[in-house]
Amino acid sequence: MEITSIHNPKVKAWAKLKEKKYRDQTQMFLVAGEHLIQEAQKAGCLSELLVCKGIDPVIDGVTTYEVTKEILRKLTSLTSSENSIGVCRMPQHTFAQWERIIVLDGVQDPGNMGTIIRNAIAFNYQAVILSTDCVDIYNEKVIRATQGALFHLPILRCDLTKQLPQLKQAGITLYATALRQSVSLQSIREVHRHALIFGNEGSGIKAEIMALADHCIKIEMAAFESLNVAVASGICMYYFYQLQF
Amino acid sequence: MEITSIHNPKVKAWAKLKEKKYRDQTQMFLVAGEHLIQEAQKAGCLSELLVCKGIDPVIDGVTTYEVTKEILRKLTSLTSSENSIGVCRMPQHTFAQWERIIVLDGVQDPGNMGTIIRNAIAFNYQAVILSTDCVDIYNEKVIRATQGALFHLPILRCDLTKQLPQLKQAGITLYATALRQSVSLQSIREVHRHALIFGNEGSGIKAEIMALADHCIKIEMAAFESLNVAVASGICMYYFYQLQF
Repeated sequence: MEITSIHNPKVKAWAKLKEKKYRDQTQMFLVAGEHLIQEAQKAGCLSELLVCKGIDPVIDGVTTYEVTKEILRKLTSLTSSENSIGVCRMPQHTFAQWERIIVLDGVQDPGNMGTIIRNAIAFNYQAVILSTDCVDIYNEKVIRATQGALFHLPILRCDLTKQLPQLKQAGITLYATALRQSVSLQSIREVHRHALIFGNEGSGIKAEIMALADHCIKIEMAAFESLNVAVASGICMYYFYQLQF
Repeated sequence: MEITSIHNPKVKAWAKLKEKKYRDQTQMFLVAGEHLIQEAQKAGCLSELLVCKGIDPVIDGVTTYEVTKEILRKLTSLTSSENSIGVCRMPQHTFAQWERIIVLDGVQDPGNMGTIIRNAIAFNYQAVILSTDCVDIYNEKVIRATQGALFHLPILRCDLTKQLPQLKQAGITLYATALRQSVSLQSIREVHRHALIFGNEGSGIKAEIMALADHCIKIEMAAFESLNVAVASGICMYYFYQLQF
């Protein structure tokens, strides 16, 4: 099917998916570029495919629209030379009996969010739980930063003050990262079923979330320098991962 | 002194500092906001101060200009609500007998560059050596990402193919990070005078630089996932740092 007008109702509907409000309403989002489209397809989330006229559609069995460069540009906010866009359904996940969980409390930067999700996959975490005030993971910048990793593990958004007590009851140990009243990362010598909690870039973990933690840990440093949260999460995840060896 | 016109020759000269070419020619650069200005002053790099009319100049002994909001906006590329800008001299550094060095080969992303510099300070590295094709550290985005850390340690740009052999001759062991033909990070049990080399976000370390390394190391991971270079650098730096304990 071919669409050439940016005023086409379908184009208008897709363009609305650039806003969180409409993504939440429709449970749909956009990804740009072949790599992310293929990841979406593998995850069973790809609903429709928009390709630049003249480009062969890559994926069988998915409704494909031939569109103009102008339409593709209208649908992405970032400077992009991508020739294809995927319209995706949000993966639906529910809580399960995970052994290794990442919890994010108010992480705001799209790049950090994407990088933390990649770290979680690299170091064998099974799920990422987000506070309601974290940046939207279907934000175009987050999707780019994850490089498709968001299709590889469940990511759930919830009220942490309700969810964390349930995790504790299910036998999960909660580790928070903090600068004060904390033990050094190296002092932890074994780890079982656990969740690692990281906080907002500026203000860290909220007091009411911190109060739920079983242990507060800090990364030893030579200089008092606040590490970027994605770096701090990578260091902690790697440390916990290698404890298994 | 007060300046109200954006056509004032001084304003035009400052605005040119947004371009790398003019920064290199004049060896000057701009920082925005009180925190960075204070860091520049502490490092002895602050040359002139521009403050919004009505704001008290914070720093004695530095030529201060009262300027309009419009002028401040002209001098910063980022969305900024800062009321002050510092005109700074680039710190001049020369090679010294360092024990712990970070080497970056073609790191392009301003956020990654800034984060890696912060990691280096946190984990007690004494200098950062950049290949000539790394992003300019006086780029506004890098300066923001470092949060002033670039004033805290020497950062030098040079031809790595010439400099690395000299470091080796001076007794520095070169560790490169790589996915292939490498040993695991955990297998390294002691470390002495060394340099850690990290490469470009997409293509890694160049072959001719890799050939100079004494050891290739890889970060153990559960899934084949390429870590963000700032995260990878943080994990390696922390690991080497804690080996001292």
